[in-house]
Amino acid sequence: MLRVAIIGASGYTGVELARILCNHPEFELTAATSRQYAGKALSTVFPNLLKKTDLTCENLSIDKLCRRADLFFAAVPHKTAMDLVPQLLKEGKKVVDLSADFRLRDVAVYEEWYQEHSSPDFIGEAVYGLPELYREQIKEARLIANPGCYPTSIVLGLAPLVKNGLIDPTSIIADSKSGTTGAGRAASVGTLFCEVHDGFKAYKVGGTHRHLPEIEQELSVLNQKDITISFTPHLLPIARGILSTCYANLNHDVSEQEIRKLFIEMYNNEPFVRLLPLGSFPATQHVRGSNFCDIGFTIDARAKRIIVVSAIDNIVKGAAGQAIHNMNLMCGIEETAGLEGAPFFP
Amino acid sequence: MLRVAIIGASGYTGVELARILCNHPEFELTAATSRQYAGKALSTVFPNLLKKTDLTCENLSIDKLCRRADLFFAAVPHKTAMDLVPQLLKEGKKVVDLSADFRLRDVAVYEEWYQEHSSPDFIGEAVYGLPELYREQIKEARLIANPGCYPTSIVLGLAPLVKNGLIDPTSIIADSKSGTTGAGRAASVGTLFCEVHDGFKAYKVGGTHRHLPEIEQELSVLNQKDITISFTPHLLPIARGILSTCYANLNHDVSEQEIRKLFIEMYNNEPFVRLLPLGSFPATQHVRGSNFCDIGFTIDARAKRIIVVSAIDNIVKGAAGQAIHNMNLMCGIEETAGLEGAPFFP
Amino acid sequence: MLRVAIIGASGYTGVELARILCNHPEFELTAATSRQYAGKALSTVFPNLLKKTDLTCENLSIDKLCRRADLFFAAVPHKTAMDLVPQLLKEGKKVVDLSADFRLRDVAVYEEWYQEHSSPDFIGEAVYGLPELYREQIKEARLIANPGCYPTSIVLGLAPLVKNGLIDPTSIIADSKSGTTGAGRAASVGTLFCEVHDGFKAYKVGGTHRHLPEIEQELSVLNQKDITISFTPHLLPIARGILSTCYANLNHDVSEQEIRKLFIEMYNNEPFVRLLPLGSFPATQHVRGSNFCDIGFTIDARAKRIIVVSAIDNIVKGAAGQAIHNMNLMCGIEETAGLEGAPFFP
Amino acid sequence: MLRVAIIGASGYTGVELARILCNHPEFELTAATSRQYAGKALSTVFPNLLKKTDLTCENLSIDKLCRRADLFFAAVPHKTAMDLVPQLLKEGKKVVDLSADFRLRDVAVYEEWYQEHSSPDFIGEAVYGLPELYREQIKEARLIANPGCYPTSIVLGLAPLVKNGLIDPTSIIADSKSGTTGAGRAASVGTLFCEVHDGFKAYKVGGTHRHLPEIEQELSVLNQKDITISFTPHLLPIARGILSTCYANLNHDVSEQEIRKLFIEMYNNEPFVRLLPLGSFPATQHVRGSNFCDIGFTIDARAKRIIVVSAIDNIVKGAAGQAIHNMNLMCGIEETAGLEGAPFFP
Repeated sequence: MLRVAIIGASGYTGVELARILCNHPEFELTAATSRQYAGKALSTVFPNLLKKTDLTCENLSIDKLCRRADLFFAAVPHKTAMDLVPQLLKEGKKVVDLSADFRLRDVAVYEEWYQEHSSPDFIGEAVYGLPELYREQIKEARLIANPGCYPTSIVLGLAPLVKNGLIDPTSIIADSKSGTTGAGRAASVGTLFCEVHDGFKAYKVGGTHRHLPEIEQELSVLNQKDITISFTPHLLPIARGILSTCYANLNHDVSEQEIRKLFIEMYNNEPFVRLLPLGSFPATQHVRGSNFCDIGFTIDARAKRIIVVSAIDNIVKGAAGQAIHNMNLMCGIEETAGLEGAPFFP
Repeated sequence: MLRVAIIGASGYTGVELARILCNHPEFELTAATSRQYAGKALSTVFPNLLKKTDLTCENLSIDKLCRRADLFFAAVPHKTAMDLVPQLLKEGKKVVDLSADFRLRDVAVYEEWYQEHSSPDFIGEAVYGLPELYREQIKEARLIANPGCYPTSIVLGLAPLVKNGLIDPTSIIADSKSGTTGAGRAASVGTLFCEVHDGFKAYKVGGTHRHLPEIEQELSVLNQKDITISFTPHLLPIARGILSTCYANLNHDVSEQEIRKLFIEMYNNEPFVRLLPLGSFPATQHVRGSNFCDIGFTIDARAKRIIVVSAIDNIVKGAAGQAIHNMNLMCGIEETAGLEGAPFFP
Repeated sequence: MLRVAIIGASGYTGVELARILCNHPEFELTAATSRQYAGKALSTVFPNLLKKTDLTCENLSIDKLCRRADLFFAAVPHKTAMDLVPQLLKEGKKVVDLSADFRLRDVAVYEEWYQEHSSPDFIGEAVYGLPELYREQIKEARLIANPGCYPTSIVLGLAPLVKNGLIDPTSIIADSKSGTTGAGRAASVGTLFCEVHDGFKAYKVGGTHRHLPEIEQELSVLNQKDITISFTPHLLPIARGILSTCYANLNHDVSEQEIRKLFIEMYNNEPFVRLLPLGSFPATQHVRGSNFCDIGFTIDARAKRIIVVSAIDNIVKGAAGQAIHNMNLMCGIEETAGLEGAPFFP
Repeated sequence: MLRVAIIGASGYTGVELARILCNHPEFELTAATSRQYAGKALSTVFPNLLKKTDLTCENLSIDKLCRRADLFFAAVPHKTAMDLVPQLLKEGKKVVDLSADFRLRDVAVYEEWYQEHSSPDFIGEAVYGLPELYREQIKEARLIANPGCYPTSIVLGLAPLVKNGLIDPTSIIADSKSGTTGAGRAASVGTLFCEVHDGFKAYKVGGTHRHLPEIEQELSVLNQKDITISFTPHLLPIARGILSTCYANLNHDVSEQEIRKLFIEMYNNEPFVRLLPLGSFPATQHVRGSNFCDIGFTIDARAKRIIVVSAIDNIVKGAAGQAIHNMNLMCGIEETAGLEGAPFFP
């Protein structure tokens, strides 16, 4: 068994990493850090893990951790990650960083949207951990920048269209809706049950969400030219799930069957992408608890637009599951290991 | 007190009409029909109405009803309404029809999206019951075609922009999300609790929802030229509420302040439209149970688009509340009568 | 119009008081205090109140408030209330205190369950604000101790049985389930959406919830002898509502019809109690947003027990609505004023 | 791989059986019947299963099924099961029946609560499939009567107390709350999203729920004498989960530590029972998606009662998971096979 540690185990991404790792056939969870809960059993913090792990949360000590694990998931906020990751790399560890700190290849863009970057030298070697786009590089990497949840859903939905030049890149609009796990586990009035339940709202309207540069970066790579899009996130009264409804003008007449071929071409061998039959569209409840990204699309003939709808579980394919997928690839083991479970419905 | 009847009281729109009418200062609910529950107390069908009404559901008999009421709310499905409404008009009654049967002015469009129309002669005199656009005509009408829920949210959000020529009408995209009351109260697997709860999906993707021609009709009137838009409805795991996120390209440079002036100009005296401060956006939970339409907008400067977000309670402003607003106007009484209640939050 | 102030307007009870008072025919809301939001419009804190009130939240200054209001709702936590209320009384104001500070007639019991009481002299004159039991005293009072939400649902459900000696008082078990508004609006991990949603749990199991002495006090008065009960609260993934399922052994054979007569005798003229037909039981969704308490019961003949189920909206009949009902009574106006709205369903 | 068939795959229990069996290391799902969806891919009926199974739903043909499977899960309604199960047994198959048809050992009791029994001869050999009580018999059985969901939660919670004579059996009250999957997948108004969401109610109050004789049967076996209890089910606005709060009078003074020892004695080696630390109580969200039964208890010293709270996922430990646990035991394979997944939270 390979020894794995979670740094930052007390958030929703942390507990989901732990949940999956508990049953992983090749990885053994040997350490979990949490400043807030240091000294407490992880299964006291998250009683769902009772009988599944005996680990006690501990304070972060790079030295101690490096003696007990070889693979690291960094599930700490951005800024914290950029200081931490280089230390792990220097110790020869493999790292999947779930923060935003190494996702943006252009340090200036990072600094515009986040803050000053203290470890810019490591950006270059970080591989953007979307296996459907970067599988071969991931296998060779020692540092993975695990994608954001919104970018995962949007980029996977649009990639075949952008790569094949089917759509006008200036016309792309991504209207995304996320479950509340995406807002994290910090106490705040805005994410209290009574504020979110039985309601729905948009937030960060007008191109101000920090996932935007990441989405544009990856679409621009596919487009081989810079793309600017409109992106509006919304908060859903569900725990898990992102559904993105993406709109774009078609460059020329093309049938749904022809487009479908391009999606098949790109995703046919992908274990975690499910292209739905024509006329079917995804629902977050059908990917719940799994690493799948479900995609459906149609042409709005009256308006000459294509509409692509994609759905993921934001803390699995949008965070913990994709991170484990990446680690599987980095370690050369079966890439679906630990991630074979079918989605939970209902 | 004016005597009012609800035809089709057993759906969610019916019970909401009854809820509001129970406390209306000028209207007295004197009859409620329901084929399914004929003979049962309305408060047995809907126990929330216990102690608020003693009415018993009855089968529809135009003759009997016309002796007991002067004002009618028809909350029956389309097709049923088109046969029923003319009979009421011939008896000299005022009617607010909540179905789609008299909303589309072009009978050919109606027949393309619905079915053959049996009472086309009455389409011409029906007034589209959006008081913000047609207040004066409503006051004079004897037949109101009460707007659909999605159209209400979208048309109110876009009206000042379209009317003032600020946006490219070919670029309009309306991404709407509705609570499940919109799907009605008929038993069906698709709207069972376990299918909808903790989930989210798009439906009628690609310009196939029947509210589309209605939206385009009203935007085209404002534009003085035909408009084709993209419209995608989604199903939210909430009971009440529609939130529409609308996107359009701006025709020229314009500031948010200038746009705000146009919204104020159009809605300043409207009792049921609340224009939010710049930087604020609506949430369905803040209009819950009320007749308000909340609107916020911003300019996405990077993408040169305007994004308008509007929220209503789909069974109040999107159905029963707007119907009562219309009836108030038709009867020459205070237009806000019965509708003054503040939204319920949380 | 009588001038009314809310002290502590930023919690869920505060906003509900404001919502109801906005449309009250006799009361005018003239001030609202909130330390946290002082200087902010109340409708900024709670956007549902936009267009319904222009008040700005202010810091608490007894002097200033007393010049601007005559009637006070104290919606502050216990301990804070006991210091504040006497000052208002000394200024000749009428006060409904929604905290626990004046509910327990025995100061020793209060100090056992809460903390030292700084104003014990005022306990004696406080009237327990359950109009169904203390209507006449309430009318004469200047200080009302507004009941807790759990006690309201349990005491109303059991009162006719205890008062008439039908049940063994040592056998009473109250299993109560509350919506999450009951937990308040303070930021905390335990009431985050993702912790509560799609889940259910018991808390304060084993007779440790602070509402217990209050329940026992009122049942003991009805019983004319001390009663000890078992009470278990649970947290429901809903915003509003308490449902209490109460069990007790019958003292002797008695029919459901005979018991029903006792309930009718007690509640027949009560505007806010709805006794359901035999065989019907309440649901929180049928009292949502209203001041009703719905009650149903049955005899479990096999086990020789009676089971009473009662439902209220915890922030209306269990807090703000009952408070306004009490104030109506204190002011000699129509007791249902402002509270006539039918429950909203769905 | 052992060949397994699901008879009745289109309900919530059916899809959950399929979900678990998709990843079972020893079982291969070879057939799934559904009258309603015959000819449709199972993954079309339940899109969560896409890429996890290629099975097509088929009509029930015992002959054909028996050639393709050796182990059967009957997830059909009672009455249907009693006709079907004997045919499978005659073909030498092993059967886990998830209906109520073989749970009650006394055919007269069955016929009182359900209807005439057409296969009473098979009742005697059916083993009640609660592994914690009947593990050895299950291993030898060819027919398992899989327990009901409520009985599983209540019997496991009370077994150590009843078996050891700690509580007065006449005093037992079980107040249970179930998620809506328990109501099945048939279209009905009562389980529509808008009827259940944001609400809570009791049903089958007063000892009328069909799970009652089953609970009493198993508690009576443990008690070695007949027991009559009070049992009230409630409907929770969640998909999965049952929480039972059970009350009983203690026969004599006993400490929580002593009681805890009896729970440990009974459950220490049980893979799917988690006894919580003293002072902790279960929550449905912490067993979600898993086969665990979580149990906590306390003594209400004031009222001299013990209160036991137990939680399960009603379609896993209360149905599909327990069925697979039973089949594992019948087949002599690792009893936890396919059921090791940690609960998913949030």
